[in-house]
Amino acid sequence: MIFRNPKDILAFYISRYLMDGDTAVDATAGNGADTAALLRAVGNGKVYAFDIQQKAIEAARRAVNNDCRAKFILDSHAEMDKYVPAGIRCAVFNLGYLPGGDHSIATKAGAVIEAIGKACSLLGDSGFIAVTMYRGGDSGYEEFEAVSRYLSSLDHRKWNVLRFDYFNRPNDPPVLAVVERKIAN
Amino acid sequence: MIFRNPKDILAFYISRYLMDGDTAVDATAGNGADTAALLRAVGNGKVYAFDIQQKAIEAARRAVNNDCRAKFILDSHAEMDKYVPAGIRCAVFNLGYLPGGDHSIATKAGAVIEAIGKACSLLGDSGFIAVTMYRGGDSGYEEFEAVSRYLSSLDHRKWNVLRFDYFNRPNDPPVLAVVERKIAN
Repeated sequence: MIFRNPKDILAFYISRYLMDGDTAVDATAGNGADTAALLRAVGNGKVYAFDIQQKAIEAARRAVNNDCRAKFILDSHAEMDKYVPAGIRCAVFNLGYLPGGDHSIATKAGAVIEAIGKACSLLGDSGFIAVTMYRGGDSGYEEFEAVSRYLSSLDHRKWNVLRFDYFNRPNDPPVLAVVERKIAN
Repeated sequence: MIFRNPKDILAFYISRYLMDGDTAVDATAGNGADTAALLRAVGNGKVYAFDIQQKAIEAARRAVNNDCRAKFILDSHAEMDKYVPAGIRCAVFNLGYLPGGDHSIATKAGAVIEAIGKACSLLGDSGFIAVTMYRGGDSGYEEFEAVSRYLSSLDHRKWNVLRFDYFNRPNDPPVLAVVERKIAN
């Protein structure tokens, strides 16, 4: 199998897009797995990693061995435009709660939608925004539906939104959406 | 953009899976575009191309300049097991009507579902089945819904079904599903 799960698909987009010197955003640092993957791809570039939980920031910082190319920011991803310069190559969102953390603390649709809008504004001419969405279980359906609705409403003349769905898996598998710019800024 | 449309995604899977000497099936020869793409990828291999319309078979044969590696079969894809030996690397379905042909002559959900089932049986340990589905307009929704239902019902322990959806395009864009074997025969 080529794409066993959303992680494989994300790794594919990272490998195809990211280049030495790029700036990337991990909008949901969590335990740092995506921050680490982005750092491996940006060479002499930089990764801005956001989380609203101190616990997550610490875990992510440990996961990347205090790599000085990673800038950890304890603030909502909806504020990313205050910290991140325009011209990023990618922004990665992994929604839901912190694995191993408090399931009642999770990303919220309103902030996620605002943050995706800001990531679109910051995105360079060639790059992508990846959003992994969860539904069912503790995640419920509200965030999934609201973020899906927002992504499907992005102007098709300006943005390409491709949704990857593991169609025959039981128990509401995660869904990945990848947003790419169709026309230059 | 990496995957501008289902054709790009299909080309990606072909490039990743097909090798010299492989056997591939074009379940819907149509105007021969997929037959030609498969022939470019199989080297000394073979492509079995099915269509129920003589007109399509002739167009496809012309499109590949009478390439002797292509075996054109004027019969339903639901009969592919009568012609194709087991161990194929891929089967490609492009549903709907023949472009430029009579829109009332189109693939039918029942035969498509039977054919996908047979393609699953014929598929080797490593390979894929791609199904491009249309909806709306002259295609309606019946075939799309029936084939989608069938694909989502494939046993998730045996088959990986990944659905690619151009999520923000208006007017019911085509949807591609790719089926891969998870466990060896």
